[in-house]
Amino acid sequence: MINYKIRVQYDGTRYKGWQRQKSIDQTIQGKIEVILKKQFGRDIEIDGSGRTDAGVHAMYQVANFRLHEAEAEHFGGEPEALTALLNAYLPEDIAVLETRIASERFHSRLNAVEKTYIYRIWNSGIPNVFDRKYVFQIEKKLDVEQMRQAAEPLLGTHDFAAFCGNAKMKKSTVRSIYEIRIETIGDEVRITYRGNGFLQNMVRILTGTLVEVGLGDRDAMSMTAILESKTRAQAGAMMPACGLTLWEVKYD
Amino acid sequence: MINYKIRVQYDGTRYKGWQRQKSIDQTIQGKIEVILKKQFGRDIEIDGSGRTDAGVHAMYQVANFRLHEAEAEHFGGEPEALTALLNAYLPEDIAVLETRIASERFHSRLNAVEKTYIYRIWNSGIPNVFDRKYVFQIEKKLDVEQMRQAAEPLLGTHDFAAFCGNAKMKKSTVRSIYEIRIETIGDEVRITYRGNGFLQNMVRILTGTLVEVGLGDRDAMSMTAILESKTRAQAGAMMPACGLTLWEVKYD
Repeated sequence: MINYKIRVQYDGTRYKGWQRQKSIDQTIQGKIEVILKKQFGRDIEIDGSGRTDAGVHAMYQVANFRLHEAEAEHFGGEPEALTALLNAYLPEDIAVLETRIASERFHSRLNAVEKTYIYRIWNSGIPNVFDRKYVFQIEKKLDVEQMRQAAEPLLGTHDFAAFCGNAKMKKSTVRSIYEIRIETIGDEVRITYRGNGFLQNMVRILTGTLVEVGLGDRDAMSMTAILESKTRAQAGAMMPACGLTLWEVKYD
Repeated sequence: MINYKIRVQYDGTRYKGWQRQKSIDQTIQGKIEVILKKQFGRDIEIDGSGRTDAGVHAMYQVANFRLHEAEAEHFGGEPEALTALLNAYLPEDIAVLETRIASERFHSRLNAVEKTYIYRIWNSGIPNVFDRKYVFQIEKKLDVEQMRQAAEPLLGTHDFAAFCGNAKMKKSTVRSIYEIRIETIGDEVRITYRGNGFLQNMVRILTGTLVEVGLGDRDAMSMTAILESKTRAQAGAMMPACGLTLWEVKYD
């Protein structure tokens, strides 16, 4: 078998997220698998580095899947030919940026060591026409300095149960965040999260909590208490999906 | 009367251009005028700095219109209130960025002294997901150096009849181009045109001609002969609207 690693970019607006669902193929994974099935005449499962929620975008999602040598011969086996083949059938809001042959044991989810997510807030009373599908608009000016202070205790390794959207989560809710960068770029407030992994809805709940601080509705010093409570109700509201983009996935 | 000057941003994809048409209001001008009519109960004509074609975008289009003092009192007369009022009713692909009170004689078309248009080419075999509505994709690599050479004789004041899309143009086809900047930004080839004004379809025909040079289908030295021919058939094909954006309009 040949193990192909692909980098996928998508505008998540029209989709029910990355992960294929039983009967609906309005997912990114489903769209790619349907093409592979038509091409190679069998079910080929692709593994993504992680599930993105409905409406969330990806700059560089990573996924992998295996083809038999004989199947690869159909398109010459060259990774570039596989990229072209997939792009020829994908809709305009999904693109394969690159295909590489990975080592036989490479697994895009299990081997991922670092992920970067970016949440984009359009902090203005004037709408953003061109990026409207990729930002979330908040009219009232955010106090970015307060947000930066609030973010500091979140860095490092913690139990992020209070920021987990899955109430029935049975596995560990401990994660490490390496960086939370809050930048202002013109009228945009852009929050970059870098960590070893993120729980379900975690980036959107972290952002919602930081936004409440930025709006003056929550004390910047309250983050440690929220973490320690391990209680979802202590954290802020979950932000809408449209502002969130999976930016990068790193491997050793 | 109070003369209001507005800066308008739009994603032209869904529209039949700037200029209102008889029975169709799927134009930018039409969308704004309908709101003004509902608000003030009479036909209020807005003048744009120029007509953008169907499908062309604008970063900063400029327009102006006049209100009676009594009408302005309805919203307090403040330009910011007018901005908010218009944005409240405009669709998400049109936004008023700013409103100012202009001098009584200000006319957005007649007083414009300089316009900037940008044509964005996505020069890659891999689709551009996020900017797909604002670029035109050309897979084959363009020879940008040849395009820059070709652009040079276009600078200055010339009769651009060969680059005019209106065969029945009765007015002067003489225009001045101050700058043609051709940049590569990653996989994008971005062409910025700055001049005192542009004829119908002129930027798209200029770009089509330069692209033919970049593809090796036309000699870089042929521009002077095209200008001198004053014949539309001598110039290249007109590029699609989607890649074109009216970027800026300047006044004295």
